[in-house]
Amino acid sequence: MHGLISKIETSAAQRDTLVAILVDTSSALPGCLSYVVAKDATDPNAIWVTEVWDSPASHRASLALPEVQQAIAKARPLIAGFGERFETEPVGGHGLVHS
Amino acid sequence: MHGLISKIETSAAQRDTLVAILVDTSSALPGCLSYVVAKDATDPNAIWVTEVWDSPASHRASLALPEVQQAIAKARPLIAGFGERFETEPVGGHGLVHS
Repeated sequence: MHGLISKIETSAAQRDTLVAILVDTSSALPGCLSYVVAKDATDPNAIWVTEVWDSPASHRASLALPEVQQAIAKARPLIAGFGERFETEPVGGHGLVHS
Repeated sequence: MHGLISKIETSAAQRDTLVAILVDTSSALPGCLSYVVAKDATDPNAIWVTEVWDSPASHRASLALPEVQQAIAKARPLIAGFGERFETEPVGGHGLVHS
């Protein structure tokens, strides 16, 4: 499995809009086992996305899907920057769901 | 919802054992919507745990469950320390499963 933990920086005023775009995009992408969108509990300008894919190839392929391209186009103007980014190899747990 | 992203430090020799303890413990805890255990892709001594709970109270309550107490007792000698820890408010996405 292939995992990513990423912090996205936006503005507090735009955070809910950006969160909604990311949540909408995350349903049922091929090879996506988990995609959780969260607000940072203390930083009003930060969003965390934690992703699990069955392979790096599935993640790369998702970026070319029309619905993901459209979401990226909508999200980009709301993104001020990127914070921490950790690449992982998920092993197991609870909530890994084949779409 | 209540989320945690935590880095646990161990030794490369003990990482698989610690990962297995954490994976075993994560199934079907009340109020746990997601609990993913992952190896850091570049640091052989690091594990990431990403958790989503329906509330902070459910998370706190889980720590008192006998099976979690037993897991903590087994895991503690394998833990060298803790790294980054981020508290989040998950909003939605894919893979949030009621246990």
